[in-house]
Amino acid sequence: MEIAVSRKAHFNAAHRLHVAAWSEEENKRFFGQCNNPNFHGHNYNLIVTVIGEVDPVSGYLIDTKWLSQLIKAEIEDRFDHKNLNIDCPEFAQTNPTAENIAIIIWKILRVKISEKVKLKVVLYETERNFVEYNGN
Amino acid sequence: MEIAVSRKAHFNAAHRLHVAAWSEEENKRFFGQCNNPNFHGHNYNLIVTVIGEVDPVSGYLIDTKWLSQLIKAEIEDRFDHKNLNIDCPEFAQTNPTAENIAIIIWKILRVKISEKVKLKVVLYETERNFVEYNGN
Amino acid sequence: MEIAVSRKAHFNAAHRLHVAAWSEEENKRFFGQCNNPNFHGHNYNLIVTVIGEVDPVSGYLIDTKWLSQLIKAEIEDRFDHKNLNIDCPEFAQTNPTAENIAIIIWKILRVKISEKVKLKVVLYETERNFVEYNGN
Amino acid sequence: MEIAVSRKAHFNAAHRLHVAAWSEEENKRFFGQCNNPNFHGHNYNLIVTVIGEVDPVSGYLIDTKWLSQLIKAEIEDRFDHKNLNIDCPEFAQTNPTAENIAIIIWKILRVKISEKVKLKVVLYETERNFVEYNGN
Amino acid sequence: MEIAVSRKAHFNAAHRLHVAAWSEEENKRFFGQCNNPNFHGHNYNLIVTVIGEVDPVSGYLIDTKWLSQLIKAEIEDRFDHKNLNIDCPEFAQTNPTAENIAIIIWKILRVKISEKVKLKVVLYETERNFVEYNGN
Amino acid sequence: MEIAVSRKAHFNAAHRLHVAAWSEEENKRFFGQCNNPNFHGHNYNLIVTVIGEVDPVSGYLIDTKWLSQLIKAEIEDRFDHKNLNIDCPEFAQTNPTAENIAIIIWKILRVKISEKVKLKVVLYETERNFVEYNGN
Repeated sequence: MEIAVSRKAHFNAAHRLHVAAWSEEENKRFFGQCNNPNFHGHNYNLIVTVIGEVDPVSGYLIDTKWLSQLIKAEIEDRFDHKNLNIDCPEFAQTNPTAENIAIIIWKILRVKISEKVKLKVVLYETERNFVEYNGN
Repeated sequence: MEIAVSRKAHFNAAHRLHVAAWSEEENKRFFGQCNNPNFHGHNYNLIVTVIGEVDPVSGYLIDTKWLSQLIKAEIEDRFDHKNLNIDCPEFAQTNPTAENIAIIIWKILRVKISEKVKLKVVLYETERNFVEYNGN
Repeated sequence: MEIAVSRKAHFNAAHRLHVAAWSEEENKRFFGQCNNPNFHGHNYNLIVTVIGEVDPVSGYLIDTKWLSQLIKAEIEDRFDHKNLNIDCPEFAQTNPTAENIAIIIWKILRVKISEKVKLKVVLYETERNFVEYNGN
Repeated sequence: MEIAVSRKAHFNAAHRLHVAAWSEEENKRFFGQCNNPNFHGHNYNLIVTVIGEVDPVSGYLIDTKWLSQLIKAEIEDRFDHKNLNIDCPEFAQTNPTAENIAIIIWKILRVKISEKVKLKVVLYETERNFVEYNGN
Repeated sequence: MEIAVSRKAHFNAAHRLHVAAWSEEENKRFFGQCNNPNFHGHNYNLIVTVIGEVDPVSGYLIDTKWLSQLIKAEIEDRFDHKNLNIDCPEFAQTNPTAENIAIIIWKILRVKISEKVKLKVVLYETERNFVEYNGN
Repeated sequence: MEIAVSRKAHFNAAHRLHVAAWSEEENKRFFGQCNNPNFHGHNYNLIVTVIGEVDPVSGYLIDTKWLSQLIKAEIEDRFDHKNLNIDCPEFAQTNPTAENIAIIIWKILRVKISEKVKLKVVLYETERNFVEYNGN
């Protein structure tokens, strides 16, 4: 029987939505204010969920302390107080929409977590906008 | 690979739970305080979720600004500061329970959003009571 | 040395903003949607704060269980699932704005709580609008 | 067509993570601070979700007032202001991890709720750690 | 007798903490990550509070709809989706710390709101860091 | 002109309300469930507020990173995952009510923070019960 264990984290970053293949005008029309060439920013809230079987002895699916440290080392230290477009090579060719940030976080974490468990991430760009990705 | 994008909104409305086919006594026994003939009300919080493929160029599944404007035009302008039982023809024959409000919101939005994506709504009647509907 | 002890509560009610001395047109222009003759409603969140000296033996300023029961008996049972304009004589002559609801709650509670302590109420009409009243 | 109806509740309890079959040293290394022999504690927030068909007459899937009373009688009265390890026979042989608490709550409620509906529980141990269990 | 009426708003912006009179090294040592030359960003949540006498006829201290529109016109439209250091002349000579942003918001609003009422602003830079300013 | 800067933190602890000078019966009658001899527990949320003048050069009243580290070193490391009654000498003679915990936290921090600024603490025992203390 499966259980899901979730851990919340957060990071603060600047970004700009921009597609290099489009003209400035096209970018501005499509992304509006989010295309501001001088960037804007967000407090990103992240929920990482691991899904699998509970160990019958320890009663743990996963040690949330370990999960918390993994998220800090792999995600927070990488993106916190950064400009996603300039400072982060992950977004050199990828527009840092909430969708793409969630997918990239999922891919970074997926290879660090046992294949026995499923992985899902929820990323809040604001309290009103959020995305969910589970690799399927 | 699918992603889910969600947008929060809200509206404040009065309502009364009441089934026309039942006697006053039956209504009162079944719905309790929620049957108050003079109405009571709620701050409804709404989360609309769209599920589908991310566009590889823009990095968007959906423009949340567009989604936000759709929710305003179709849901908030329709139900905000209204008496659901009296002002809203959607509930002329339908008891405005949280379940029914969620289903009606889903149906209103479903025909306005591309068939390529799935749609889900979560409706909070209070911080402690909420319902989720996805049409399946 | 003074300490403040607070307790949260909530009630759901319908209301309409309307001044009997004004014409329908004046009311509509001044209160807008809030003047809907069929009412709208809110989930009101209430924080009651008592301020005074901590008892050196018990370590209590006030028993929050007692405070919680007082709020239930005097406020929640009175206003929850009610139409403030129709069901509640407190608003027969008083427009149920957030300001007036807070003042009336403060007056109801003030006479039930020891004069040795100060009293403050915060009333959230929505998550975005709230008022605070302390009788000064 | 299915809908999900959820109700939030909460209880405050002390606990200690400890596996009787392990040495003190193994327990301390594995569970860290959570193994403190003198216990620590949490405000547990619980969301109980029932999934099924809406009744076409009443517009209810389930009466949330009934659900709320069931949760109070079966979960809150059982675990609130208790030491899970000492006061609660449910954890005599079971380590009170968030995973196991959620599974036990699910089992307690499952037999009290109609088999026509599915049941899911989400248990927040803190605002940052939570688990979800639905019996599958 | 005074009452306080509050309204919440929000804006998303990029910024960088930097004192022009200091060397790069001094700035980096003092502001740490917040000095990143490529900027980072936040979802700023703002609470504007007006304090004064309730009008005995209308039952309003202030029309929160008017207050909400004022905040949109004067604060959100000015700072939302902006780079505070580059796009906003208010911060040309002023380091955009949370303290300074709150003071500048207070000064902008103070001249737009009747002198009969007091004014207070609370600015959340993150959920964990916030400042309050009332001009005294 | 004064500004207030606040920082949130949290710790999870077990406690029991009990006055040594009273009989078991008196304790049980006065504190009810909170007197459970086997303890219960809470997720305590703490807001520490410092009030003073903004430095005109840096734009800081206080470095919130420093404040956050102080709270971790002095409060979280001291009380997190502890049994306040057994593990913490601060409560050897003092009943760990929310009031007393707030006062003790204030006293611990007061001597570590510059006398030029005022200090206030808010302690949430639950989402519904909280206390505020500022030493006056």
